[in-house]
Amino acid sequence: MGPIEYSILKKIQGKLGRAGVIHTQHGDIETPAFVPVATKATVKALTPEQLRDTGAQVVLANTYHLYLQPGSEKVKNFGGLHKFMNWHGPTMTDSGGFQVFSLGAAYGKELSKVVKITNPEQILQERSLDGEIPRLATIGADGVSFRSHHDGSLHYITPEKSIEIQHNLGADIIFAFDECTSPAEDFRYQEEALERTHRWAKKSLDFHKSKPNSERQALFGIVQGGREESLRKKSAEYISSLDFDGFGIGGSFAKEDMETAVKWVNEILPEEKPRHLLGIGEPEDLFMGVENGVDLFDCVAPTRNGRGGTLYTHWGKINIRNAEYREDTSPLDPGCSCYTCKNFSRAYLCHLFRAHEMLGGTLGSIHNLYFVINLVRCMRQAILEGKFEEFKSSFLGTYGVLSSA
Amino acid sequence: MGPIEYSILKKIQGKLGRAGVIHTQHGDIETPAFVPVATKATVKALTPEQLRDTGAQVVLANTYHLYLQPGSEKVKNFGGLHKFMNWHGPTMTDSGGFQVFSLGAAYGKELSKVVKITNPEQILQERSLDGEIPRLATIGADGVSFRSHHDGSLHYITPEKSIEIQHNLGADIIFAFDECTSPAEDFRYQEEALERTHRWAKKSLDFHKSKPNSERQALFGIVQGGREESLRKKSAEYISSLDFDGFGIGGSFAKEDMETAVKWVNEILPEEKPRHLLGIGEPEDLFMGVENGVDLFDCVAPTRNGRGGTLYTHWGKINIRNAEYREDTSPLDPGCSCYTCKNFSRAYLCHLFRAHEMLGGTLGSIHNLYFVINLVRCMRQAILEGKFEEFKSSFLGTYGVLSSA
Repeated sequence: MGPIEYSILKKIQGKLGRAGVIHTQHGDIETPAFVPVATKATVKALTPEQLRDTGAQVVLANTYHLYLQPGSEKVKNFGGLHKFMNWHGPTMTDSGGFQVFSLGAAYGKELSKVVKITNPEQILQERSLDGEIPRLATIGADGVSFRSHHDGSLHYITPEKSIEIQHNLGADIIFAFDECTSPAEDFRYQEEALERTHRWAKKSLDFHKSKPNSERQALFGIVQGGREESLRKKSAEYISSLDFDGFGIGGSFAKEDMETAVKWVNEILPEEKPRHLLGIGEPEDLFMGVENGVDLFDCVAPTRNGRGGTLYTHWGKINIRNAEYREDTSPLDPGCSCYTCKNFSRAYLCHLFRAHEMLGGTLGSIHNLYFVINLVRCMRQAILEGKFEEFKSSFLGTYGVLSSA
Repeated sequence: MGPIEYSILKKIQGKLGRAGVIHTQHGDIETPAFVPVATKATVKALTPEQLRDTGAQVVLANTYHLYLQPGSEKVKNFGGLHKFMNWHGPTMTDSGGFQVFSLGAAYGKELSKVVKITNPEQILQERSLDGEIPRLATIGADGVSFRSHHDGSLHYITPEKSIEIQHNLGADIIFAFDECTSPAEDFRYQEEALERTHRWAKKSLDFHKSKPNSERQALFGIVQGGREESLRKKSAEYISSLDFDGFGIGGSFAKEDMETAVKWVNEILPEEKPRHLLGIGEPEDLFMGVENGVDLFDCVAPTRNGRGGTLYTHWGKINIRNAEYREDTSPLDPGCSCYTCKNFSRAYLCHLFRAHEMLGGTLGSIHNLYFVINLVRCMRQAILEGKFEEFKSSFLGTYGVLSSA
C-alpha cells in the first residue's frame, strides 16, 4: 500500500470526469475537490477553524515561499507543516517550479496561470521582448539558480533539492520539480523545456523513492507541454510511464487552449491515479476540468479576490465596494450558506471594504472559498447522481448574468 | 426604571474600588470590565464570534468615524449598530469629542490619551508651537466645526448633533459631547474648555431626555478638568449634579497625573452609578483604575498592539517578530487560555508577522484582548473574594520583568 489510495466511485457517462476519494494519512479527500492555497503556511486571513468551516478538505502550501521564509528546516524541526500551521487535515506542497519562474526568473514578464491573448501578435512581441528583460534566474540542465524576490539572495534548486525541501515540509502530497513555460515561448523552447521537465521528473522520483518519506508522502509527476498537442501527449505518455502516485497538469494557459490540453492529457493518464490541474479555479474552468477528468484544483483567485472585495455570486462576480451595495441589507448571495452570508449584509461588507477593515478580507475570503469549494462539491454530488450535465447547464446558465467586478 | 441599572456586589475595603453589574437591554456587563473598541463597527481583524470568545461583554464604537463613514442614518436605517455589525451584546458609542479634536482639530499636534512628558519645557514648547499649526477645527460656544480627516469636507458638531448621531447608531450606552484638552494647555485654557464641556453636558442631556431614545439608551456625562485638582473636583461636582445614567472620566493624561485625577473624581461621583475611564487600557493603569472605583475601560492599545506584533504576557509585552522567537515552539504565554495560545506557537506567530500575514494580526488581537479582558475579570473575581491587593501584588510583581517590545 502506497502513501495514498485513490478509488473511483462513479464516472460521467461518455466523458473522462469522475467522482472518487483519495485516502491520505491525514484523512480522506472526496474528489473532485477544490484545494485552498496556504502560500506561507496560512490561507490568508483565515484561522484553521474558519478554513475548515468553508468545507476545505485539504490545503496546498507553496514550497518556494516556505523555503525562503521561514525555511523548510524550521518547519521540519517543528514537526512539519501540519503542526506548524495547526491544520490537521491533508496537505499538499507544490514543487516550487512555478514560483521560481514567475517570481524569480520571470520578473517583469507576465507569467500567470491564465493568459489573455487579445492581440495575435502579442506572442511574438513577448518573445522579442524576452532578451531585453534582465533574467533573475538561469536555467541549467540540472536545475535553476535564481534570486529571492525578498532580498535578492542567490539560490539553486534542483529536482533533488525541491523534493528534499518538500520532505522537510512533510505534506501528504508533493510534486515533482518542473519548468512551467509561458505560452509566449515558441515550439522549440517548449520542446527543450519539456525535456528538462521530464528529466527532472525522473530525478525527483528517484530521489523521493530513495528516502523513507516516500512511504508517507505521495509524489505527483507534472505533465507540461504548453499548447502543443504533440508535446502534451508526449508528456502525458512519459510521465504516466513513471511510478508516480498521481499527476499534476501544469502550464500557463491561454484560456481557449486549456480544455484541449486537459483532454489530450487525461485521455492518456492512467484512470486509476488522481489528477490535479494546477493553479486553476474560476467556476467555468472548474466545470471544464471536472468534466474532463480532473480530480483536484488549487488557485489563489478565491482568496485574492475575496481580500480585494471581488466576491462570487450565483450570478457572477461582483465588486462589493460599488455604491449600489451601500444600503443593501440583503445577504451577499441569498442562496449561499456560508458564515458571511448567514451573518452579514452587503451594506456591512461594502462598509468594511470601503473602510479598509481587515474583517472585510476575512469575510470575503470565507465566502469565496465556500462558494468555490461548494461548487465543486455540488459537481461531485451531481456526478454521483448522474446529473452532471444538468447541474452544469443550470449553474452556467445564470452565472455571469450579473457581473459588476 | 432607566435604560440601565447598576448594582454593587462588593467593595475593596478602605478603597473606592468595587465589583458590580450593569444590566442593559442587550445583556449584563459584569464590572469592572474592559471594553474592546470597534472603531468603525468592527473590532479590527475579528469576527463577532472571535470577539465573544475573548471574553468581551460589550464593545465601544466611535461616533466620529461612523458619522463620516458610512453615516449614522445608514446605520439607523439598518436597525442600528447591533444589527449592522452582528454583535448582539451590549454596545457603547463615544461622543465624537475626542476624535474631533485628535483627528480633526489637532492635526499635527500630539493628542493622545497618555502623554509622556520627558522634557519639562515640552509643555511650554507645545504651547508656543500651537499658533503655528494650521487648525482644522474651530471651537465655538455651541460646537465645533472641523474638516474630515478622510476628504477634507467641512462638518459642524454640536452637543445636540452628537446625541442625534448616537441615537441613530443606537448603542446601549452613549456619551455627552465634550472637549478633551491636551495636558499641554494652560490653566486658563483648561478652565475655558471645562466651561464649554459643562455647557455641552447640559445640552446633551436636555436633548437626550427630550427624545424617546432616552428610554432605551443610557447617557453618561463626562468629567474633564485636565491635571488641575480644582477643575477636576469642580467638574465632578457639576456633572454629578445632572441626571446622567453614569459617568465618563475623560482627559489626555500625563501618566503620573492619572491616579490623582481618578481619585479626585471618584471620591465625588455618586457611588450608585457606573464610571468609565475613557481610552485607558495598559495593565498597570487598569489596576489603578479598578482600585480607585472605575467600572469600565476602553482602549485601542490591545488590538493596535496585537496587529503590530506587540503581545502581552504575564512577564510584560514582547515583540513576537524578534529573532529569539523564530524557533520557539512554546505557546506565546503558557499561562494563557486564549485561542491563540492554545493552538499556535511563538515560532508560527513570529513567522506570520515577519511574512506580513493577516492571520498574525487576528491571532495577536485575539490574544491581547483576551489577556486584558481576562486581567480585569480576574481583578473582579479578586474583589469578590476580598483578595484584590494580593492579586495586584502578585500580577504586578512579575509583569514587566521580561519586556522586549
